Amino acid sequence: MNVNAPKFSFVIHATDGDARIGRLITPHGEVSTPAFMPVGTRAAVKAMAPDELWAMGYRMVLANAYHLAVRPGAELVGQMGGIARFMGFRGAILTDSGGFQAMSLARINSIGEDGIRFRSHLDGAPLTLTPESAIEIQQALGADIMMALDECTPYPAEHERARQSLELTARWAERCVRARTSPSQALFGIAQGSVYPDLRRNSARQITSLPFDGYAAGGLSVGEPKAAMREMAALTVALLPADRPRYLMGVGTPQDLLAAIAMGFDMFDCVLPTRNARNGAAFTSAGRVSIKQAVHTRDESPLDPRCDCRCCTTFSRAYLRHLFMAGEILAARALTEHNLHFYGRLMREAQAAIASRAYKAFAAYTTNLIEAGESARNGKTN
Amino acid sequence: MNVNAPKFSFVIHATDGDARIGRLITPHGEVSTPAFMPVGTRAAVKAMAPDELWAMGYRMVLANAYHLAVRPGAELVGQMGGIARFMGFRGAILTDSGGFQAMSLARINSIGEDGIRFRSHLDGAPLTLTPESAIEIQQALGADIMMALDECTPYPAEHERARQSLELTARWAERCVRARTSPSQALFGIAQGSVYPDLRRNSARQITSLPFDGYAAGGLSVGEPKAAMREMAALTVALLPADRPRYLMGVGTPQDLLAAIAMGFDMFDCVLPTRNARNGAAFTSAGRVSIKQAVHTRDESPLDPRCDCRCCTTFSRAYLRHLFMAGEILAARALTEHNLHFYGRLMREAQAAIASRAYKAFAAYTTNLIEAGESARNGKTN
Repeated sequence: MNVNAPKFSFVIHATDGDARIGRLITPHGEVSTPAFMPVGTRAAVKAMAPDELWAMGYRMVLANAYHLAVRPGAELVGQMGGIARFMGFRGAILTDSGGFQAMSLARINSIGEDGIRFRSHLDGAPLTLTPESAIEIQQALGADIMMALDECTPYPAEHERARQSLELTARWAERCVRARTSPSQALFGIAQGSVYPDLRRNSARQITSLPFDGYAAGGLSVGEPKAAMREMAALTVALLPADRPRYLMGVGTPQDLLAAIAMGFDMFDCVLPTRNARNGAAFTSAGRVSIKQAVHTRDESPLDPRCDCRCCTTFSRAYLRHLFMAGEILAARALTEHNLHFYGRLMREAQAAIASRAYKAFAAYTTNLIEAGESARNGKTN
Repeated sequence: MNVNAPKFSFVIHATDGDARIGRLITPHGEVSTPAFMPVGTRAAVKAMAPDELWAMGYRMVLANAYHLAVRPGAELVGQMGGIARFMGFRGAILTDSGGFQAMSLARINSIGEDGIRFRSHLDGAPLTLTPESAIEIQQALGADIMMALDECTPYPAEHERARQSLELTARWAERCVRARTSPSQALFGIAQGSVYPDLRRNSARQITSLPFDGYAAGGLSVGEPKAAMREMAALTVALLPADRPRYLMGVGTPQDLLAAIAMGFDMFDCVLPTRNARNGAAFTSAGRVSIKQAVHTRDESPLDPRCDCRCCTTFSRAYLRHLFMAGEILAARALTEHNLHFYGRLMREAQAAIASRAYKAFAAYTTNLIEAGESARNGKTN
């Protein structure tokens, strides 16, 4: 990182209830919030070119420290100027620490006080991810925002197991703060606590007592009921400092994002728009559309009549279905582009609604439109 | 097809030796020649969006009648306005008749006087492709240029087998001419003859005695030595009428195209730039580059320093190698875009060289540059 790069900061421009609009200032430019970050695990958002992300308004992409450390290596990416320059993206990069992947993807892993011991999912090489090495890797990768190493508590977890987990996460968080040496790269802490209100509160208090540049709610959208997810998110966000960016990790559907923005969250990431696209599922203003369904075989209408993306202005549902059934790469491209365009527009519209102090009505209207469309397609009455 | 659409025509603007520049006028616009057609078998050029092809200068794409007839069906594509409109491409479409695919891809096939009997490679449904049905399908698909059904003589073939094959192709060609009912859609005949000069001459004379709008040399690049391919191409082109477009099917490398343009061919198609891209191979001004080679691991230079495509102006070889090794869709996109950009530029440069009556020097220089680059990388002296 350039040591003369501007220090990370966060400015809030306006609020509407608990919802707020703001700006993240990073060494790789500014990011308007609420912001959704497309997932670019291996320094590439699957099927997308970096200039397309930029043109859709995205100014920050999420990459994964574990994946990049395993291949092509953090040192190599650093030598190439950091992730953003390596992937040809003009905006900023947030890296997930990789703890979740080290636990879920890697073969043979054990979690101890020191860190996570595992074997590379590529070649079986033994590796250890500690709070210190997680920071070292993310600093080498040139991330604009680094995430503390945490234990993402699996769901379901007994209360005692969840309590031990968040205590470990708290001790690791302290070590991450101490390990950080690059002042221009922001570092965020992560609160855990499973679905237990008392543990969520404890974890949020522990993490916010440490001098992080921003705070995240982690361990949600890992299998728990949607109501529990939203309850834990609301309970956590209320304990995060209002003057710092608040990041809800791994969430979610457009409706989830609208609800979380109302709670006061500023940042989001999720694989849904990109992964679902590759499986033929589109997010539209009238809810989810599965392009493989036979009903689209001769449908000349666009995927989303209210959308102005390249996919919706160029292709019919009939053609998109043909591409998907034929396994053409263009199917993944077109649906990913549409879904990311949809998520990006949702964030811009949310920002405009907050600025006009009309967020509640906007969120209710948009959510209703989505749910009415899905109910109609499922043959239910609204 | 719109019956008021302009009739197909071909205008030659200038010549330089046997090389010529011209213009195909089709119901979907004009195409400058010499022209390379990207292969869009299933109404999609793999990994590319139609506006990207247009932006690279491509005005005609090749699609495959067999594949589209099997899925999604010729009638459906016709109802959607024809292939070009179905796939959102503003230019023209040439369809291969599908005879080659019916013979090579389909399970259980037999070739008789009537046509090709086979089973769909998708669901095993019994189908027959006759000269009449091949034309009917291509008319329904809305192709600007249709190809006569031929038997693509396999290589190697005994002289007697090759002779019988071209006689069948000639009888099918007559039936194709009689079967055609759409005056605005051009129909091209195909000369065969394997690697036998006498048979190539016979076939070219037979096919050119029929009133086709253009003539193609087929059955080349099917396994024969490169010298034989070039000899047969040269021998055939000399017998094709000079006032009609001449199409060399399924060829080839950049060097092959430069040689064929010198012979007087106007049109080309080949899977090389698109298929090789997906396998990590790039065509550059200094020859082929295999991006997976370890030598590129830390190489910050572009794939082709002489290229101004998005891939070469955005990505380093190190990043492209990372994408390819990680199996990212963007690797296929970036290399396909580069290769098609390279082929498109080669055609534009060839046209400019012919216009300045400097084609011979241009082709020699470009070929030498490619071969010198490949020799240098292979450790040979030039």
